[in-house]
Amino acid sequence: MTAQIDPFYAIAVSGLAHRLKAEGRSIIHMEFGQPSTGAPAAAIAAAHRVLDNDPMGYWESPALKARICQHYAETYGVEVDPSRILLTCGASPALVLALSMSFAPGARVAIARPGYVAYRNTLKAMHIEPVELPCGEAERFQLTAAALAALEPAPDGVIIASPANPTGTIIPRDELQAIADVCAERGITVISDEIYHGISYGQRTPSMLEVLPDALIVNSFSKYFSMAGWRLGWLLVPPSGIDAARARMGNLFLTPPSLAQHAGLVAMDCREELEGHLQTYARNRELLLAALPGMGLGRIAPPDGAFYIYADISEFTDDSLEFCQQLLRDTGVATAPGIDFDPVEGRHFMRISFAVSTPEVEDAIQRIGPWFASRNRRPSA
Amino acid sequence: MTAQIDPFYAIAVSGLAHRLKAEGRSIIHMEFGQPSTGAPAAAIAAAHRVLDNDPMGYWESPALKARICQHYAETYGVEVDPSRILLTCGASPALVLALSMSFAPGARVAIARPGYVAYRNTLKAMHIEPVELPCGEAERFQLTAAALAALEPAPDGVIIASPANPTGTIIPRDELQAIADVCAERGITVISDEIYHGISYGQRTPSMLEVLPDALIVNSFSKYFSMAGWRLGWLLVPPSGIDAARARMGNLFLTPPSLAQHAGLVAMDCREELEGHLQTYARNRELLLAALPGMGLGRIAPPDGAFYIYADISEFTDDSLEFCQQLLRDTGVATAPGIDFDPVEGRHFMRISFAVSTPEVEDAIQRIGPWFASRNRRPSA
Repeated sequence: MTAQIDPFYAIAVSGLAHRLKAEGRSIIHMEFGQPSTGAPAAAIAAAHRVLDNDPMGYWESPALKARICQHYAETYGVEVDPSRILLTCGASPALVLALSMSFAPGARVAIARPGYVAYRNTLKAMHIEPVELPCGEAERFQLTAAALAALEPAPDGVIIASPANPTGTIIPRDELQAIADVCAERGITVISDEIYHGISYGQRTPSMLEVLPDALIVNSFSKYFSMAGWRLGWLLVPPSGIDAARARMGNLFLTPPSLAQHAGLVAMDCREELEGHLQTYARNRELLLAALPGMGLGRIAPPDGAFYIYADISEFTDDSLEFCQQLLRDTGVATAPGIDFDPVEGRHFMRISFAVSTPEVEDAIQRIGPWFASRNRRPSA
Repeated sequence: MTAQIDPFYAIAVSGLAHRLKAEGRSIIHMEFGQPSTGAPAAAIAAAHRVLDNDPMGYWESPALKARICQHYAETYGVEVDPSRILLTCGASPALVLALSMSFAPGARVAIARPGYVAYRNTLKAMHIEPVELPCGEAERFQLTAAALAALEPAPDGVIIASPANPTGTIIPRDELQAIADVCAERGITVISDEIYHGISYGQRTPSMLEVLPDALIVNSFSKYFSMAGWRLGWLLVPPSGIDAARARMGNLFLTPPSLAQHAGLVAMDCREELEGHLQTYARNRELLLAALPGMGLGRIAPPDGAFYIYADISEFTDDSLEFCQQLLRDTGVATAPGIDFDPVEGRHFMRISFAVSTPEVEDAIQRIGPWFASRNRRPSA
């Protein structure tokens, strides 16, 4: 039997948002995790040049692989050979590639709950068993070395996400080291999703590669580099995994988009423009953190990085999907229901993406403040 | 245990070609199946406009889905609702999507041998058993209804490819109908790879959809539309499969490249330019079919469509990989060894892609003619 997997409920919210917009309503899109900005100007200029001069066949950019290796050396102090980089059509197929080369059907892979919905669903689609470890406020909503050490039997693998989606929490380097030690000792294959690296607010985002040379690292140009629709990401594999990874890439996916590779190479040197986006996110985050507690949204996962706020709404509802849809209908502000990220506790949470412009965040706060004030509240569940 | 899958040997030939080129050698690339032309001019112009005006987030183009449905109505006389179209990053992930939604690990899926290497490898990577049906000259190198009817036990699925890679042979409509009937009767799920549709030389290329409404159809902008590196394809699913397909798309792949969708929509109306490419392929094909028999390459699969010639080289060698590498080293003409397409008989075949310019084909014929003439020949194996 093929696997049953869940829909992504934020898509339902977004669909409602687009219908309301078509009716003339003003909508603020805070339901998806994507920058509202485009690619850096120099990357777009490079794309124009390539469009006019390159027939763009199947292609993998050696220069981009080398530039990504330079990034690992500069950012994390880790030397990586370009042969270990697989360029992919975004982080999603990079994760599929990592899972396919690492696990057979029936394997067990640990993930944090709450966590990115696609981890659970992709594992299930590939007939790998997701082992969800509940992570609450006490664990800052993150997997811990202690939880992985206590899990019996040891899982075959684990997906680590730092900064995490939906919470934004970062795993500090010493805890990453402890996780790496437990996984090395117990023979647990580690896939580290580092798609939100580069987006943090004061804290460094250490790479799993710093502490575990054999980790598989997933990353993408969709978040920090603001190139979501270009569909470009990468998987970094240990030397022992290169052949298995390349064989799967060539058969299951072939190559990533040529134009995105040209543009991505240029984008990696557009730090000034990209840091400007980061300042916008930082300002948006401050505005929300200042405003939300007064609305009754005081229990929030520490948003160390990424561009999300994951807020406890248990004083207001037991049905986060209905709640987000009502909020949208009443205020035009689209958000994601917690059930996308946590099938157990998620009915008491919502995720707000602040990867929009600051005026949009200010507008959203003006809209939702009175709405929350008008809701009946009850003791937190 | 994770699946062991084979490398794509043409990549080794191509790697050698690039090394020889770096040494200053003149190389003619006939090893891969991709047009040497770029996207239609109007599609490129559209891409320039989008680059300047759209931040390009995650996106699926409703207009492109509607345009693809128009294509099915106009080309095949079949009405399709746009909800049945999943836009993908090329045909490769469309096939992964089709297999994931249709089969569990352990399922058995029939494929033709020879056939596109990724069918066998992708099935194996997904822990689905490829059931290779030998297809020789008598079957025009194609699966038949009779072979599918005789297979015991009935396979869970079958991948049909017409025009086929590596042979270019087309399955006529009456045989497609017979295959559809057998599969309907025996409960065999049909995936039809129609990536070479639009490229044929006199014959029509009927769609499996004409004869089997529940078939899953894979297609792409990489061949006829000459947009390989843009990474855009689609999967058409029956109404009963929409939810399963969309859930997998959203989790395993997310969305295809935004720019490619804009450009692809325009490309679908660039018939004049695209038919010009087809005239080039037709001329190239005629030149090769006229020249090859005189070189000892007279046993050729009927190249009804696509842009390949699959030639029997058993008079020359038992090792097609070594043969293609030697041909490349001696003449600068890169081709693909038959072992990529047929692990049993492929050592006696080579594939020549003629999706290059006509002067390149003329040059290639000049180069390889004396080389073949100088080889020792023996009775065909």
